[in-house]
Order: sequence, then C-alpha cells, then structure tokens
Amino acid sequence: MKRNAKVSTAVIRRLPRYYRQLSELQQAGVVRISSSALGKSMGLTASQIRQDLFCFGEFGQQGYGYKVENLKEEIGEILGIGRGHTLIVLGTGNLGRAIIRNFKFSSNGFRLLAAFDVDRAVVGSRVAGVPVYHIDGLEEFLSAHPVSVGLLAVPIAAAQEMGERLVKAGVRGIWNFTNCEISFRRPDVVVESVHFSDSLLALSYMISQQERQDAAGEKEEL
Amino acid sequence: MKRNAKVSTAVIRRLPRYYRQLSELQQAGVVRISSSALGKSMGLTASQIRQDLFCFGEFGQQGYGYKVENLKEEIGEILGIGRGHTLIVLGTGNLGRAIIRNFKFSSNGFRLLAAFDVDRAVVGSRVAGVPVYHIDGLEEFLSAHPVSVGLLAVPIAAAQEMGERLVKAGVRGIWNFTNCEISFRRPDVVVESVHFSDSLLALSYMISQQERQDAAGEKEEL
Repeated sequence: MKRNAKVSTAVIRRLPRYYRQLSELQQAGVVRISSSALGKSMGLTASQIRQDLFCFGEFGQQGYGYKVENLKEEIGEILGIGRGHTLIVLGTGNLGRAIIRNFKFSSNGFRLLAAFDVDRAVVGSRVAGVPVYHIDGLEEFLSAHPVSVGLLAVPIAAAQEMGERLVKAGVRGIWNFTNCEISFRRPDVVVESVHFSDSLLALSYMISQQERQDAAGEKEEL
Repeated sequence: MKRNAKVSTAVIRRLPRYYRQLSELQQAGVVRISSSALGKSMGLTASQIRQDLFCFGEFGQQGYGYKVENLKEEIGEILGIGRGHTLIVLGTGNLGRAIIRNFKFSSNGFRLLAAFDVDRAVVGSRVAGVPVYHIDGLEEFLSAHPVSVGLLAVPIAAAQEMGERLVKAGVRGIWNFTNCEISFRRPDVVVESVHFSDSLLALSYMISQQERQDAAGEKEEL
C-alpha cells in the first residue's frame, strides 16, 4: 500500500469516521458500497471520498465501488488498529471511571492495562476489572510494561506534571481530557486533547446561526 | 459585521480554538498580536488566520495586528456567547457527573439549569448545586423553561429515544456524549457528538506513523 508522507490533518480526522461508518455498514450486512453512497451517509461528496482514500493508495474499482470489509480493514491498518497498542488511565475520578467503564478500548485496538490515582481509598481496588495503583508506582510500572498512550483524567493543576512524568518514562502518546492545554517541546510526543468547550462552542455557533436566521425570517414576514 | 451565509465546517471548528487562544493571551496580559504570532501559537499560517477571520468581516489593521480583547469579543459574539443559551443534562452517571462538576458552562456562555435521571436514588438531590429531577418531568420542565441545548449522557440504548423527547419538546441543540450516532431528520435540529473513539483513533494513527518512521530509520542504519 502506498503511504504519502504528508497527509493533511483534515484527512486524518476523517479516517476514524470512515472506520466507524464502515463498521456500521458491515454490521448492517452491506458488502459493497459506491463512493457516492458512502459519501451521502457521511455528509461528504463522492469526489471528496475518492480524494481522501487516494492519499493512502488505490482502493475500490471504477464503477464497482468499495468492498466494505476490505476498505474497513485497510483503514483500520492505516489507523494502527492491530498494532497492539496499550493504554493506562491517570485519575479515577468521575471522568476517569466513566471512560474506563464505558469506552470500548478493544474495538479501537487498545488494551487498557491499569489505572493510577493518589487517593488511598481507591488504590488497590478495581474499576470494571482494571487494577488501580498508586501514582507513586507509575515509573516502575512503565519500566515493566510498554505503554503507548497515557490518558490524563487528573485535575487541571496536575495535568502538566503528570504528562511530563509519562513522557519522561517513555510514553509517546498523551490523550488529554483535562480541558487544559499541555505541551512538551518533544517532536516525538503526540498530544491529543478532547476539548469539550470547543465542541460546545461549535454547537453554540450553529444554534446561534439558526436563531439569527429565524429572527431574519420573522422580520421579512412582518 | 459582515457575515458570509456559508462558512466552511473547518473554519467553524477553528473558531472555538481562536477564542480559547485569545482568552489565554488576554489573561497573560497580551494587548495586541500579529497574525503570524497568533498563527504560530496555534500551528496555523498567518495567511490561514487572515483568511479564516475574513469570512466574518474585517478584523485588525494591516501592519498593526489584532487587538486581543476586541478580536476575542468579536469571535465570542459570532460563537453566540452572550446570547443567554441554557442547557440541561440527561443522565447523572459518572460521565454526566464529571461534566456537571468540572465543565465551566458559564465561560462558554451557557447556564446549566437542571439534570434529569431515572434513578430514584439521585432524583431530588443536587450535583454541584444543580438539581436532579426525574426524567418523567422532562416535558413539563421544558414547557416552563426555554432550553437551548440538551446534553445526552445516558446509556446507548436510551440515546435516540431521549434525543427525540428533547427535540419533540422544542430543544434544537443536542450535545451527544453517548458515543453512538443519533439523528432526527430535522433540518432545524443540530447534533454535536463528542466521539471519544475518533479522537483515540487519530492519536493511534499519529503514534503508528512515528513507530513506522522509527522502524524505517532503524532499517536504514543497519
């Protein structure tokens, strides 16, 4: 498979959506799909889809569409599902617990190894089967277990420090749920932040636009 | 202020990041910033920044950069902060609780009015000062209080049904944390989904790319 060295962020952001959509199509029993039908189900044009997938090589056949299972597997491979990635969670407050309990790590190719906390009341217990260790044991754990991603669900005040401990101990992927910006000046470390406020503000923009249109419509009617 | 009727999704997605970045600059005491400096702090080019902001009218002055406070306020207005938007939370499990306790609704221009649940053990209590009502009272509450956004933090099996009850009762914005797709065939209803898996898979792609590069580098060295 061809891999272009430089793929745009926008395309990378769409790949997981393709993967999710193709998984749903596969579960619904769809064997083959045209780029226009796939695009329609995702709110994209057929040419956008062809362009996106062309970044990674030749998929599908002119006039025959894509084989759902093959395309899903190819995209899964590009995304790194199946590379045996591992993950630990720092912070077992409400958010950490919610993610440990409900998020399907294995469907995304990750094995959740352990959680860490400072609270002696939870250290030694298990959350949904996952052992909770004291944060003091973080470095020892990391020296014994290769960990691809550290999920930060700690209080804002601890975010940067905990991130630095992970990076120093060799973790290269940080999945940041703290709603604050963290950075490490390390080109080999990737930080992916889930900013709830960016999502709410995008929604706020969209409903505000509708309110403005409604108001303009009512004015015209008068 | 000029408002182009059709602004691309990519630009809309960047607006909250501008707003966040400008808020941080303002807190740090920065009064004026050039488009290249603003771009650098956000990983964008100066010309990208100028293009984005041009969609919404004329900001800044050639050669003088942007006034941080003004630009932040203008973008805030575009995003609908200050329109008095209101929000309710459906589901007070770990995730719902984590968001109610930690998310700064007011900084994003939202007032959190109430939460709803089916669990009699939590109904009647308060989470971080927010009253929890029984879901049976949802429609009555909505008829008495205008609500802009309903946040769904319910189990997947209840997601679509709860969304439909919100929409039927007049809520036009759905902030979906259920990690499943919901849709309403209503052009006037906006659904914004926070898909944790899309975020993790993007991270998975980025660390996989690095692993591949490392492996290629090691091969070359042999």
